[in-house]
Amino acid sequence: MSPAHAQLFLENFHHVATFGATDANGVDRQAATPEDKLSRDWFAHFARARGWEVRVDGIGNMFALLNWTPGAPYVVIGSHLDSQPLGGRFDGAYGVIAGLHAAAELDERVKSGSDDGSSAVPQFNLAVVNWFNEEGGRFAPSIMGSSVFAGLMDEEGMLCVKDLAGVTVREALESIGYLGTDERPEVAGYAEIHIEQGRILERENLTIGAVDYSWYTQKLDIEVLGEQSHTGATAMADRHDALVAASKLVLLVHDVTQKFDEEAIVSSVGHMTLEPNSPIVVARRVHLVADLRSASPEIVKEARASLIEDIAKIAREHDIRINVNDFDIRDIQYYPENGLELIEKAAVNLGLGVRRMRTMAGHDSVAMNRIVPTVMLFIPSVDGVSHCEREFTTDADMVSGLVTLTAVAWEMVNGALEDEPKDPDLDDVQDQLSQDVSAR
Amino acid sequence: MSPAHAQLFLENFHHVATFGATDANGVDRQAATPEDKLSRDWFAHFARARGWEVRVDGIGNMFALLNWTPGAPYVVIGSHLDSQPLGGRFDGAYGVIAGLHAAAELDERVKSGSDDGSSAVPQFNLAVVNWFNEEGGRFAPSIMGSSVFAGLMDEEGMLCVKDLAGVTVREALESIGYLGTDERPEVAGYAEIHIEQGRILERENLTIGAVDYSWYTQKLDIEVLGEQSHTGATAMADRHDALVAASKLVLLVHDVTQKFDEEAIVSSVGHMTLEPNSPIVVARRVHLVADLRSASPEIVKEARASLIEDIAKIAREHDIRINVNDFDIRDIQYYPENGLELIEKAAVNLGLGVRRMRTMAGHDSVAMNRIVPTVMLFIPSVDGVSHCEREFTTDADMVSGLVTLTAVAWEMVNGALEDEPKDPDLDDVQDQLSQDVSAR
Repeated sequence: MSPAHAQLFLENFHHVATFGATDANGVDRQAATPEDKLSRDWFAHFARARGWEVRVDGIGNMFALLNWTPGAPYVVIGSHLDSQPLGGRFDGAYGVIAGLHAAAELDERVKSGSDDGSSAVPQFNLAVVNWFNEEGGRFAPSIMGSSVFAGLMDEEGMLCVKDLAGVTVREALESIGYLGTDERPEVAGYAEIHIEQGRILERENLTIGAVDYSWYTQKLDIEVLGEQSHTGATAMADRHDALVAASKLVLLVHDVTQKFDEEAIVSSVGHMTLEPNSPIVVARRVHLVADLRSASPEIVKEARASLIEDIAKIAREHDIRINVNDFDIRDIQYYPENGLELIEKAAVNLGLGVRRMRTMAGHDSVAMNRIVPTVMLFIPSVDGVSHCEREFTTDADMVSGLVTLTAVAWEMVNGALEDEPKDPDLDDVQDQLSQDVSAR
Repeated sequence: MSPAHAQLFLENFHHVATFGATDANGVDRQAATPEDKLSRDWFAHFARARGWEVRVDGIGNMFALLNWTPGAPYVVIGSHLDSQPLGGRFDGAYGVIAGLHAAAELDERVKSGSDDGSSAVPQFNLAVVNWFNEEGGRFAPSIMGSSVFAGLMDEEGMLCVKDLAGVTVREALESIGYLGTDERPEVAGYAEIHIEQGRILERENLTIGAVDYSWYTQKLDIEVLGEQSHTGATAMADRHDALVAASKLVLLVHDVTQKFDEEAIVSSVGHMTLEPNSPIVVARRVHLVADLRSASPEIVKEARASLIEDIAKIAREHDIRINVNDFDIRDIQYYPENGLELIEKAAVNLGLGVRRMRTMAGHDSVAMNRIVPTVMLFIPSVDGVSHCEREFTTDADMVSGLVTLTAVAWEMVNGALEDEPKDPDLDDVQDQLSQDVSAR
């Protein structure tokens, strides 16, 4: 990749970060908002300007197709352009923009190669994807677009999901002009690059993470049903305060991690709503969502059992009802070994430090890994923070990640993750890329 | 009051309860909503059908004026037609509808008396009021319309208050056609009847409460500022979770009452919002409102000081900022002694059990008591519950309250609460009313 191309990539990245930009260097670009539309329009323009076909499917996923070999399936690369409310500008957007630029680089390579006949056209076509609603901040659950694509979630059901203002996914996508009807591309493999959202690469001074498995995760949907009453006129002893019970529950969910080894499990309540939510009314109903994650399914199940037992005690103590439902259970997913080796080889050839690591966060690649050979790459996150405005990754790490992704995608379109991998000219390509990156 | 008139009152009461009716016998008729408009239109129609003048002021308060003596000030009776979300059908609405029917009864008495010359026209005119936004569920603070009327809150500031959807009071009132420009009536006195919202009358088998003072109350506006982060990727030790800190705070506010004698103080958190409120994001900011009430200002102040100290500890423990601001401080208000005697005398004359009692809840009468001689009457609440759908008071108690209010209002328009009370024919009137009620 030429220094000029790397520079153009960085300019594009920082331009997209202006869509929904916040005062504190973050972005607020939730799914199917006007800000999301700006980033989608930009994606479509980038693709069409290069003569690529753009498709939008029935759940708002966008695909830019590079049709090198008519009829061949696609290796898909990308991530998502939506963000959390007051989120960071790297989470998701980096992977999409890196995907577009990796595709541009490979498109040039294929076209110049096929012009002079020096190189065969790759076995697979290439596509870049912008998945709908990975974040799930506005519309739950998260990882929606890729999960529908992979057949893990029902499209019709997801189109009916409402945000807090009562707007459905269908209405929101229609309102920004991105409820599509295009046919979904046939997929041969999937690659995604993303910021780590943790401190491991930074601590170990490495540039590339090769994701070997995703944590076991599950959520608990919890409804606390007390009795509405007057905050002034109701004696303390006569109350069935749903918020007092819910507050104990939030602390239970937080403290349950202390029953296990340090960093063995994380748990959180990030979503909670009160009814009627009036300063002078004791709450009737509190709805909250608890999120449990661990490398070990057994630890999550043990934490869940402990919570269920303690929640029942709180319900008895306050003489109220608490309904708990399991949802969004995601089993450990292992990424294919030959994909990990592909990432490691590409990084080493580029002179970049690399290690294998699990992901605690969910990603679109976790859904895609269920249906096609999938690889996931990480680059460092400064201080390990994400889902916040001070999320940060250096330009140098972003470019190193882009070059690695380009190398990996090239191998994949040439069939590297097929059952019998072909490996015609990996080293040559990597040498060339390695020179490019060191020339920056 | 004739049995037919009592029957009409009950029919009207139960009709108004259909505006915003909920499935569980409550009403959801928040300030300046389409449901509130229905009740306001009904009020205006009731008044105009009887030839009374209707005025709407700049904060949406509605007055029905009975102009017996041109130029004389008004004794105002009434309450509010707005409700809490999923509130009860008695809170507020009972006082307005009883006010309208007391006025209708007295209007008939004055007009028939002045026709045959047997009775002098009262010294004061009479008005019935429907105060805007007593509940404060949609627009904080509560007791808004009467407080603006009494000069305790700034009208322009209140018109700019927004609900959770960002709609201002001004826009909401305009949208239902009740942002008025009429001149406010000059007031000589105020009377309000309301359900007790407590168990005292029910326990002691009494029908009328004469409110002698209001509790000292104050609110704390609390902002908990943590750091937004990813629920999956952020280690527990690296978090500054605003919701975990806020949950501890809710429990502190609840438990502080245990430092004092039983029923000496009530405290609550009824309002709380999270940002960004996403299931997979650790909360950045939690905003909540604590409500403290006691008969003793010293107890509230001691509880507040204890909370401030404990909140500072939580902020240090979680390394986050917590901002606490006092607001909505309402001192103890004593109702005038001659008003209490007036209620007691009226009740005794009607054969109704009566006692003096404080109000723990705020009411429009608390605001009006700051500017004119004011009386407040209670009738029983079954089980003491209110601000909820199962709020209940019997028809018999409602009619007894109406008859008592009518007697009290008659004395007031005849100058009973002036510095030198005149008491021309109280006993005669009460005898007549007493017969009416026993005939039901």
